[in-house]
Amino acid sequence: MTRHTLPAPGAIPADALRTVVDGRWAHVRQETREQLAAAELHPDPDLSSAEYRARITDALKVLTASGRPQSGFDPSVGGDGDVGGVVTAFAMLAYGDLSLLVKAGVQWGLFGGAVQVLGTERHHERYLRPIIDGDLLGCFAMTEAGHGSDVQHLHTTATYDPATREFVVHTPYPQARKTYIGNAARDGRMAVVFAQLITGEHRPGVHAFLVPIRDADGRPAPGVIIGDDGRKAGLNGVDNGRLSFEQVRIPRENLLDRFAGVAEDGTYSSPIENGTARFFTMLGTLVRGRISVAGGAGGAAQKALALAVRFGERRRQFSDPSTGEEIAVLDYLAHQRKLLPALATTFALHFTQDDLVARMHAIQAPGSGPAGAREQRTLEQSAAGIKAVATWHATHTIQTCREACGGAGYLEENLLPALKADTDVFTTFEGDNTVLLQLLAKELLADYGRTIKKGNPLQIAPLAGRQLAGVLAERTGAASLARRLPWRGLDLTDRGRRRTLLETRRADTLATAVRHLAPALRTGNDEFAVFNDAQDLLLVAARAHVDVLVETSFREAVEAVREPGVRALLERVYDLHVLSVIDRERAWYLQTGRLTAAEARSVRPLVNELCGELRPYARTLVDAFGIPENRLACPMLDDEAWAPAPGK
Amino acid sequence: MTRHTLPAPGAIPADALRTVVDGRWAHVRQETREQLAAAELHPDPDLSSAEYRARITDALKVLTASGRPQSGFDPSVGGDGDVGGVVTAFAMLAYGDLSLLVKAGVQWGLFGGAVQVLGTERHHERYLRPIIDGDLLGCFAMTEAGHGSDVQHLHTTATYDPATREFVVHTPYPQARKTYIGNAARDGRMAVVFAQLITGEHRPGVHAFLVPIRDADGRPAPGVIIGDDGRKAGLNGVDNGRLSFEQVRIPRENLLDRFAGVAEDGTYSSPIENGTARFFTMLGTLVRGRISVAGGAGGAAQKALALAVRFGERRRQFSDPSTGEEIAVLDYLAHQRKLLPALATTFALHFTQDDLVARMHAIQAPGSGPAGAREQRTLEQSAAGIKAVATWHATHTIQTCREACGGAGYLEENLLPALKADTDVFTTFEGDNTVLLQLLAKELLADYGRTIKKGNPLQIAPLAGRQLAGVLAERTGAASLARRLPWRGLDLTDRGRRRTLLETRRADTLATAVRHLAPALRTGNDEFAVFNDAQDLLLVAARAHVDVLVETSFREAVEAVREPGVRALLERVYDLHVLSVIDRERAWYLQTGRLTAAEARSVRPLVNELCGELRPYARTLVDAFGIPENRLACPMLDDEAWAPAPGK
Repeated sequence: MTRHTLPAPGAIPADALRTVVDGRWAHVRQETREQLAAAELHPDPDLSSAEYRARITDALKVLTASGRPQSGFDPSVGGDGDVGGVVTAFAMLAYGDLSLLVKAGVQWGLFGGAVQVLGTERHHERYLRPIIDGDLLGCFAMTEAGHGSDVQHLHTTATYDPATREFVVHTPYPQARKTYIGNAARDGRMAVVFAQLITGEHRPGVHAFLVPIRDADGRPAPGVIIGDDGRKAGLNGVDNGRLSFEQVRIPRENLLDRFAGVAEDGTYSSPIENGTARFFTMLGTLVRGRISVAGGAGGAAQKALALAVRFGERRRQFSDPSTGEEIAVLDYLAHQRKLLPALATTFALHFTQDDLVARMHAIQAPGSGPAGAREQRTLEQSAAGIKAVATWHATHTIQTCREACGGAGYLEENLLPALKADTDVFTTFEGDNTVLLQLLAKELLADYGRTIKKGNPLQIAPLAGRQLAGVLAERTGAASLARRLPWRGLDLTDRGRRRTLLETRRADTLATAVRHLAPALRTGNDEFAVFNDAQDLLLVAARAHVDVLVETSFREAVEAVREPGVRALLERVYDLHVLSVIDRERAWYLQTGRLTAAEARSVRPLVNELCGELRPYARTLVDAFGIPENRLACPMLDDEAWAPAPGK
Repeated sequence: MTRHTLPAPGAIPADALRTVVDGRWAHVRQETREQLAAAELHPDPDLSSAEYRARITDALKVLTASGRPQSGFDPSVGGDGDVGGVVTAFAMLAYGDLSLLVKAGVQWGLFGGAVQVLGTERHHERYLRPIIDGDLLGCFAMTEAGHGSDVQHLHTTATYDPATREFVVHTPYPQARKTYIGNAARDGRMAVVFAQLITGEHRPGVHAFLVPIRDADGRPAPGVIIGDDGRKAGLNGVDNGRLSFEQVRIPRENLLDRFAGVAEDGTYSSPIENGTARFFTMLGTLVRGRISVAGGAGGAAQKALALAVRFGERRRQFSDPSTGEEIAVLDYLAHQRKLLPALATTFALHFTQDDLVARMHAIQAPGSGPAGAREQRTLEQSAAGIKAVATWHATHTIQTCREACGGAGYLEENLLPALKADTDVFTTFEGDNTVLLQLLAKELLADYGRTIKKGNPLQIAPLAGRQLAGVLAERTGAASLARRLPWRGLDLTDRGRRRTLLETRRADTLATAVRHLAPALRTGNDEFAVFNDAQDLLLVAARAHVDVLVETSFREAVEAVREPGVRALLERVYDLHVLSVIDRERAWYLQTGRLTAAEARSVRPLVNELCGELRPYARTLVDAFGIPENRLACPMLDDEAWAPAPGK
């Protein structure tokens, strides 16, 4: 990349910028914008949970009528197969009410998605049409009170009874109850329940079952105990609840049997012999949920920044001693450093998300052919890492935007509180972020050593541990060598140098984790202790890996831009993002000798300079997301509130 | 400090630990605990704002009956003069409902406090008794929509009319309306209104006026327009609202005239001639509010940690491959690193807060004699810095605790959501944290240069700027010298070395800011631009200053402990806190050559080791705060929920 000349803010062609930001699913984005612009506005924040839930259930019907939900399903079941489009549109619901986003995600993404990818023709024929049409609302009942991250070890059981050809679904003790289940407390009629399958002496692990939970009148089905999770920090338009089962009988056909079946006589069969492999294959098909959450987090961060930038341009505080004029708060360096690097990273994640969606689309869309195991696995790795990074970024960014708007940011009428509260759970649902990053790190180790056992990120068999030790020992030498490569001499204004710094960190943090793990594993130490002692190093390695994924997506997107003004602007946004990453990790670069002290000290003025340079374009940049004006309208941005003082 | 031997968790004497943690106002803490244990429990989180406000107004009456509110007022007005005690008790209200804490703070701290310290005998006699007794509820109407941080430049006016001997209070345009005012939307009958005093041609700045806003039946007074701020992110039991004034007439006597008076003929007089000095003297008397907020933030962080540590000990996830037993999440290093350094810093801030309260008590309590300007000023500096650091710490810690409890932490029934939402505004009210740290930095520069003009942190007169340049230039040489002092050779396990690192950083970051400012000011550059370019450096210097204040308070508290087990435990908590600060600032230490790369790399294992060492004491430590059990009781910690699996 060369450094293009930046035209004045007014000379940046907004349409060309929008086109770049909109990317491949631009038509879907435009359509969703129009729907959002036409739909009902923010609900009264003082609604009771009951009223709010009713409102969101109504909104779900409006969404059904738009035809969008069916576009993500396979053409074989009446859908359009536009996997990428539906995930893109879903993420944009974050510009509106996040309760609707999550409710839609539960209904069509999780519940409908599970029926589609884990079920077979008989399930598709019977259930998918009413699911798409919103006539059959349902739950995705995986998480239990005692098992959220470690879903392979759920305690709910589904025991096959050959006498009646039924499964008996049962909750054996309190921590095994399903909880935080959307659609459970009010609307759901059926649930996809994940339970340990038992047939005779055989216990082949967790499988998914369709369990009716309410009758047509909404009364709980016999043996199904439904609880309400009650008020939550946010998302109170979603009826999260609890499900327990007292020996609930369901027909044998209600096993979602794409990956495993139970014959009438109770014989279990599966095309995937290994139980762990089978379970993770089932889970892998559900990757769409994780990618959707990352997208929703991105939309929420974009909206928060759009609000805070607009406010920061209007709100003035303290006078310039030379002119006596009050200064817009966004003209303060401290305010710029709060918002602009966050905005740069939001752009970076936006392009990363688009790439992730395209990769998923290539695997999952009709006609894409069977996915290679390798593509599927790297997609899952990327989804885990990007979900963690994108949702933490959203949480931090929305918090910063709230604070940047002061007291106004604390009022519900100004939209930031709901953004914060509604997205807060994104960091721990669809996979706890810390666990996801560990999972990614273990996968990276596996790629590195090629011998580590897959599956539970903490379950490394002793043999694999020793094997790993040997392989890693060989590799360690190479990693140490790599540390001595010469790349001094170019300063941090050089894009290639900065990119190398990110890539070096990715390779080196992984090598460091390996160097800590290998000798300890070789000497036969307690495996839990060995991995636990390196847990922080694994998290660092995973984070560094994601940093490179994000940099790559952003760079490639910028390099593809032809319009010179847009290119020049996005280059600087890219620069600010990458420098922010280096700034965040300065300590690591210094203590590994990757940066000299003088270089590290040069980061601050470079970041400040970019903030100053981008300040006049802040509004152009947040406008590029194309968030409908009615979704940003709020009293703190209302023109009337800003009527000038008399005599001004 | 030497390193004492740490006894087993069971051998730490809980009473001795509690005595140390309770400190000087132990009796007040014990009494408040008993009140909290006896009082009504958590409100239904699904209450409407109207219901919740009514509930908190009732709770305020219960608090009145406890006699605690009057203990903070002067004996001359029927109080007990226990300034430190009342602030200590106030902070502990954070263990309960934070809406009650804020409502109490508005009524007795801000409204009552302003009448006491800004008013004179006639105001005290007439108003303080009904204020203390909760018969006259009132507002502290300082903040305007357009002026929060820069309260010296409020736009509300109070113009004296000698013909009727009245002040005419007026809101000239929308951004001058008072907003976020507690007690305004529902309960307040009167407000202390801060407005620009105008008498004839004279405009001597902002003064405080008592303005009736509602009649006895609750109807708005003539000319007073009352709005409702509506639902907020949290604190919905507090009736925040907006006040505008349409030429509202109040008697001359309603000027709170301790620092300035207007005679019947309109002649203005004040013992403090300089307008800026007068205004900041008035503001300085209100330091108690800022200190109280820091205390409340501390209480909220303690409660969040108590909840998360208890949950982290019970909740298990993933099996140990050697034993097959599931592992408590607090046994994972990553989980320890989330909670234990935050817990250590919470202890550090607890002792810092106690020192701050004692310093305030020494100045404000009856019989303490007139405060020296220097003591008052350093108290204000410390209060500004500690308020910023303590409230950000609370926000981050509560967020971390919420995430550490996963889905359970997102449910209102488990108390973390309200803690987060209610305290979120603490970072921006009673002084925006970023502005407070800048203010502190400017004060530190003033101490450094002794010539900088006081007042508005951005308003440095050209003369002061040039004066500053000269003085700073001299000092710069000395600062550079100091950088070359030898202190290498001791490693980071040495407490003295670590303490030196914190102190060095304080001195050096300030010197760095000076080195950036001095030449630019000397060459007569635009002052706003000069200070703005160094804004990030000023914030760093302020933060480093507070780090030393906190370290000092914690160290002195630990050094005073006689009981060897408690001493040994708190020494390690102190170590973890100080190492966390060094860890956070590793990049700075490396790039200034204060730490070698090898030393910086040694921080991680030291922090991890301390986390491991303190893990078994986590429960002992959170229990030491003495939070009443009924305030921690919640479903996620309920014994019944943890009934074991069958056969276990």
